Amino acid sequence: MTLSITSNYSQAPTVADATVAKRPAWVAPTRAWVAAHQKQIVGELVDLLAIPNVAADKENIRRNANHLVEILRARGFVPELLETAGNPLVFGELKVAGAQRTLLFYSHYDGQPVSPAAWKQPSPFVPVLRTGNADATDPRGLAQYDPESRIYARSASDDKAPIIALCAALDALKSSSILPSSNIKIILDGEEEASSPSLVPAIGKYRDKLTADLMVILDGPQHISGRPTIAYGARGLAEVDITVFGPKAGVHSGNYGNWIPNPAQRLAALLASMKDDDGRVLVSGFNDGIAGLTPDEERMVDAVPENAAAMLTAFGVAAPEQAYPKLQRALIYPTLNVRGMTSAFVGAGARTIIPDSATAAIDIRLVKETPAAAMIEKLRAHVRMQGYHLVDAAPDAATRAKYSKIARLVAMEDSINAFRTSPSDPQTRALADSIRQAIGEPVLLRTLGGTVPIAPFIAALGFPAVLVPTVNFDNNQHEENENLRLGNLFEGIVTIAAILRM
Amino acid sequence: MTLSITSNYSQAPTVADATVAKRPAWVAPTRAWVAAHQKQIVGELVDLLAIPNVAADKENIRRNANHLVEILRARGFVPELLETAGNPLVFGELKVAGAQRTLLFYSHYDGQPVSPAAWKQPSPFVPVLRTGNADATDPRGLAQYDPESRIYARSASDDKAPIIALCAALDALKSSSILPSSNIKIILDGEEEASSPSLVPAIGKYRDKLTADLMVILDGPQHISGRPTIAYGARGLAEVDITVFGPKAGVHSGNYGNWIPNPAQRLAALLASMKDDDGRVLVSGFNDGIAGLTPDEERMVDAVPENAAAMLTAFGVAAPEQAYPKLQRALIYPTLNVRGMTSAFVGAGARTIIPDSATAAIDIRLVKETPAAAMIEKLRAHVRMQGYHLVDAAPDAATRAKYSKIARLVAMEDSINAFRTSPSDPQTRALADSIRQAIGEPVLLRTLGGTVPIAPFIAALGFPAVLVPTVNFDNNQHEENENLRLGNLFEGIVTIAAILRM
Repeated sequence: MTLSITSNYSQAPTVADATVAKRPAWVAPTRAWVAAHQKQIVGELVDLLAIPNVAADKENIRRNANHLVEILRARGFVPELLETAGNPLVFGELKVAGAQRTLLFYSHYDGQPVSPAAWKQPSPFVPVLRTGNADATDPRGLAQYDPESRIYARSASDDKAPIIALCAALDALKSSSILPSSNIKIILDGEEEASSPSLVPAIGKYRDKLTADLMVILDGPQHISGRPTIAYGARGLAEVDITVFGPKAGVHSGNYGNWIPNPAQRLAALLASMKDDDGRVLVSGFNDGIAGLTPDEERMVDAVPENAAAMLTAFGVAAPEQAYPKLQRALIYPTLNVRGMTSAFVGAGARTIIPDSATAAIDIRLVKETPAAAMIEKLRAHVRMQGYHLVDAAPDAATRAKYSKIARLVAMEDSINAFRTSPSDPQTRALADSIRQAIGEPVLLRTLGGTVPIAPFIAALGFPAVLVPTVNFDNNQHEENENLRLGNLFEGIVTIAAILRM
Repeated sequence: MTLSITSNYSQAPTVADATVAKRPAWVAPTRAWVAAHQKQIVGELVDLLAIPNVAADKENIRRNANHLVEILRARGFVPELLETAGNPLVFGELKVAGAQRTLLFYSHYDGQPVSPAAWKQPSPFVPVLRTGNADATDPRGLAQYDPESRIYARSASDDKAPIIALCAALDALKSSSILPSSNIKIILDGEEEASSPSLVPAIGKYRDKLTADLMVILDGPQHISGRPTIAYGARGLAEVDITVFGPKAGVHSGNYGNWIPNPAQRLAALLASMKDDDGRVLVSGFNDGIAGLTPDEERMVDAVPENAAAMLTAFGVAAPEQAYPKLQRALIYPTLNVRGMTSAFVGAGARTIIPDSATAAIDIRLVKETPAAAMIEKLRAHVRMQGYHLVDAAPDAATRAKYSKIARLVAMEDSINAFRTSPSDPQTRALADSIRQAIGEPVLLRTLGGTVPIAPFIAALGFPAVLVPTVNFDNNQHEENENLRLGNLFEGIVTIAAILRM
């Protein structure tokens, strides 16, 4: 679903004159350089977008990787391809005299699969420019772009724009002979949309290259307010299918109704036992270990500008769940979400039977205090507490004869734990301060509600990480007609420059 | 599902010598006639089965009807086709000197649709004979048949065999110059498997022809015990789909989990509110008006021979619902059965979303005290009591903005009420007594659990009705490889003769 909320991009960032006067010296020349080099920046992005980048398309993936090596080399990086069992990681290192730290930037160069017929342009890999309702045009060659113009192409926002923005930020600083304040490492993932299977294994071979003081993840959409955004974490994800078994096969609902137990009814009762009407999870220990927010955290969370009424209207929902009526507070806790449910048939195909089974597909969004394995075990314990005998496969006759209530829980193997970095960490604090001074008060998100496949990589590396998303929130991420608002590209360069100068 | 319970056909009916001595005089010659005329009886059935009879096949339906007219004429009936807006009803009347009453026999000559490829024989309309594991043979021409042999063909059991059995019973009595004790009317439905839409309208045109003292419905399978079976009623059926609405479209379960309410979770809670863990319906007034059984009814219900353990084993269920652990007692009450359930996707297609809606397909098996319209209204009231605003169509933006909990109930239009005739009625008592004297103690079912489309016809006619099912319980009714055990055909003739002599 595309959120149809209007963001006031033109008003953000709001900068009082008094504040502008205090901007660091590098800001004005950087903005001037960006304004003067829009043609070059857009051209470089369009060249990169023109190389198809679905993770399974090995030939084009390597063309992307080789192209990126050259882009990095042009900025003075020592680039290389880190080979893996899957797609290559593109790595580059740029040492800076007098560096105060080492930053590891992460982006990904693969994109979601495409259904070209669903796009409003001939190919998702032939980028087009659209401004308002005007016809699509060739995006190359303009000296100046309307910041409201958008480039439409797969990965325009997710996640090639940040790579070009980082390069442009380096170019801009260099043009004014301003050095970054950190050594720069960059790693570009070629399998993020395929869950990044090669990242953690790469640590075994390349740990020294990957070591840094702070990882900066350039991915995802900026806060809807249009302000610079820093996210200090992301929730994890565990997925569990729960099946309640009924009779061996569907039985006649007339002949046996009121006598043979109904597995759909039982699944309903089981799900109802897991959550109260306000949305509070009732599984024992589900929220264990989650302390309340510190006063600082409370201030940070409550400072996130959020138009709840507009979001609810956009979703067509009158009221949020009452357990956590504020969205940012809701994100403190893990979720238990029924993402799908099935039993026999409804509609034209419905038959008057007691079904043979009923299944709910559940996803659990994890927080740092609630790792996947423990949560799945708590869910299993809850189901047992409701009187169920748990099986690992379809129950055999002996099991059916012995246990009245039989259920199966299947946990998906690719669960991802949450990560969360402290906003008080000296490196993250320096990053936020630099953005604040250069641009204005950023939106500070204690955690994203969603999940990033990079989380296990962060955990394995063991140093702090933050996400700095820069692209427009309404970029149609993962969908057809993915796009990038050019104002976000240009402003993102300044945001990244602030990180380089932190 | 085919119930894989072995019935002791060879032991039923168990008749003590002392009892045999008291059998009415017509019984022995009738049995002898049946034994001597198996070739003729089977041949006449096979001729009828060879005419395809799917209700939508108008040409062959009329061939069936015309063939049946001739069969009836041969027994002295004055037969005719009663034309309707759909398939013709075959009607016949046979007046008997000194008749004590008029019986209206009902059967149907149409059959369920067929998928010939799923049958183990070339065509469902080319009947074959099978005995044990022997190869299929032509069913015609044997002087004697193994009672365990079965004829495989569409409608062999459902419902052409009873028509032939009735004709054979008349032939048998006639051969011994024994008159039926009642005037006989017969009506043969050509659309039973299509819900009998023409029966009730036919009353407007043909009420005088259809009037009788008792309707005897020859349809359905005999009790699994193999004993003669009389059913005094059948539960009705109402169908309702309940949809709980969530956000306008699925929303990201990470970004909005714990905040946007989940309609699958809410549907689960709603269903759980309707029934307790023992299977007791909690909808207010659901069982209103249902008095306890009288001592006579209790004796009758408890006398039904039922091997609950064998049934549960066959179904693969350890225990029945605890509200009504005895099946025959469970049938006293209406059911609330979740026959299907759906929300978004499970399995490989599952997505990490909060679904946009969740739907449960419910069937309610009705009893005489609980007519469809009132029950659906009680269900609606229950949903409202759970805080839902009910809509008649997908909710618009204003409705979504106003109501937090929104649901839609869609009741199917073709609900069928229950019917139930008193076992104490003089006509039904005479029928049961006659069967008891001729064959042995019948199984008396206060009501069938399932539903018969003839129920509105019974209600509209206004005189008592009973079902006397005679075919084997394991006849694969409505499925491929429908069959008739010949022992049931031959014994059914004696049962029907007992009704003719009641």
